Amino acid sequence: MAKILVFGHQNPDTDAIGAAIAFSELQQQKGQDTEAVALGEAGEETQFALDYFDLKAPRVITKAASETTDVMLVDHNEFQQSVADIAEVTILSVVDHHRIANFETADPLYYRAEPVGCTSTIILKLYKEAGLTPAKAIAGIMLSAIISDTLLFKSPTCTQEDIDAAKELAKIAEVDINTYGLEMLKAGTNLKDKSADVLLDMDAKSFPMGDKSVRIAQVNTVDLQEVFDRQAELEEAMAKANDTNNYDLFVLLVTNILDSDSELLVVGEPAEKVEKAFNVALDNHRAFLKGVVSRKKQVVPQLTESFK
Amino acid sequence: MAKILVFGHQNPDTDAIGAAIAFSELQQQKGQDTEAVALGEAGEETQFALDYFDLKAPRVITKAASETTDVMLVDHNEFQQSVADIAEVTILSVVDHHRIANFETADPLYYRAEPVGCTSTIILKLYKEAGLTPAKAIAGIMLSAIISDTLLFKSPTCTQEDIDAAKELAKIAEVDINTYGLEMLKAGTNLKDKSADVLLDMDAKSFPMGDKSVRIAQVNTVDLQEVFDRQAELEEAMAKANDTNNYDLFVLLVTNILDSDSELLVVGEPAEKVEKAFNVALDNHRAFLKGVVSRKKQVVPQLTESFK
Repeated sequence: MAKILVFGHQNPDTDAIGAAIAFSELQQQKGQDTEAVALGEAGEETQFALDYFDLKAPRVITKAASETTDVMLVDHNEFQQSVADIAEVTILSVVDHHRIANFETADPLYYRAEPVGCTSTIILKLYKEAGLTPAKAIAGIMLSAIISDTLLFKSPTCTQEDIDAAKELAKIAEVDINTYGLEMLKAGTNLKDKSADVLLDMDAKSFPMGDKSVRIAQVNTVDLQEVFDRQAELEEAMAKANDTNNYDLFVLLVTNILDSDSELLVVGEPAEKVEKAFNVALDNHRAFLKGVVSRKKQVVPQLTESFK
Repeated sequence: MAKILVFGHQNPDTDAIGAAIAFSELQQQKGQDTEAVALGEAGEETQFALDYFDLKAPRVITKAASETTDVMLVDHNEFQQSVADIAEVTILSVVDHHRIANFETADPLYYRAEPVGCTSTIILKLYKEAGLTPAKAIAGIMLSAIISDTLLFKSPTCTQEDIDAAKELAKIAEVDINTYGLEMLKAGTNLKDKSADVLLDMDAKSFPMGDKSVRIAQVNTVDLQEVFDRQAELEEAMAKANDTNNYDLFVLLVTNILDSDSELLVVGEPAEKVEKAFNVALDNHRAFLKGVVSRKKQVVPQLTESFK
């Protein structure tokens, strides 16, 4: 029988890749024949974490049905964020911490979602429920995922459970959370050498809102100005992306990981839904959002509501 | 703040009501202010179980938003099987053992699904994870739900986990599973005194399939002939229900709980999808399905596939 493929969302971040590795490892310990794969290349932050803990980046796939009948999803459930042919395979289980939408199955399945900051926090719980402990490297990549998703516990998505899980994993992984964490986050903020297209695609997700298709990308930086020096180039690439992929609206969330603020760049229509969502006026297609660092908690629900 | 309402699906069976009672009780022990309610009156089987364990039937509601903002769902997720105004309230958590479809939230939530025979089996696991044990009466109604959903372990939906959970609960509830179970199941098979409308509505669910709306009702009996003596009356009521509720197809599954077989009665179109699904020819709108007792595992997936 073909291996069961385990993967996170498209444009994988450290949780999408880390949770896939950790959940696949857990399934193997339970006797399942699984392989962690990814729906895209690891970014620099993720690669830093993989290298640090001496793990191999998962093989990249774009389709699943050609090689297996069964899959397990981590860190996502919405079909438009999943593998292209997700409707053609059987989803055996999902572990996730996002809203549920545009998801359906023909049969009952395992679905484990909790409103915590990171999928890997839930996966640590699953290890414990099975009476198992993740190995050092696995604990390291799970810790990296929590640091990444919670921006070192500064995101409003971060819960006490995430902090507790991170502490527990840091002990197993033998690292100091703050020293390692800041080093890892900074590894992901090297934006200068990247084309606008690459930058916009690093951590981007699509959401149906009302009858529109909204693309929301997020990049982390330690210097907002450095990113907005390239505003014209970014706007052009966003307009092109809208055109090519039939997005109605493209929202880029540029997050300063040191100050825990973000600035938006908006291309497409209806841009007034963005103004309404955050009670701001766009100026030169931009708006500063004080204290906003979480797409999931501080951007997607507000925009979704605004489109109602 | 208003109480959080906990409820199972419309036309509640013993699991819909039992799981709501047990999950609400667990949430209260965890410090939440919850109330178990139901989306319909308890049937005779459920009432037998409630009486046996000296529990009160949950209050019946038809809407939720007028009295609360937050709900918890058990034993269902599909919106068309839930409270009428489900889209107007926040779903905090779901515990279920069905496929996921026609379900979405704006925010992350707790979602716990496992492909076992009964929601109450999962809820026993949640008690244990919280380091708690259900009280005698709660264990009794959870056991009743497992017996009901698995037809005393004879349904193909029944897993080893359901059997183990039932044994554990029977000890706490201090009953003999087989003696109590058969007595409870028989209490639900008194169909003679019921009008066709009542009979068709006792355990019925609606499913969107392709672009059609399919209603699938199930009744348990110890005598198939007794039910089909009323075939003309049933067909008339099914046609009327199709008309009134815009169902395209009404399928009645009459299950003999002693022999573990079922006979179908089909009214509406496209009836040929039923023939294709089960590889049978309808004769006088009827078809005998040997070994079929589970709507969820032996009817819904096959029909869904047939509509593709």
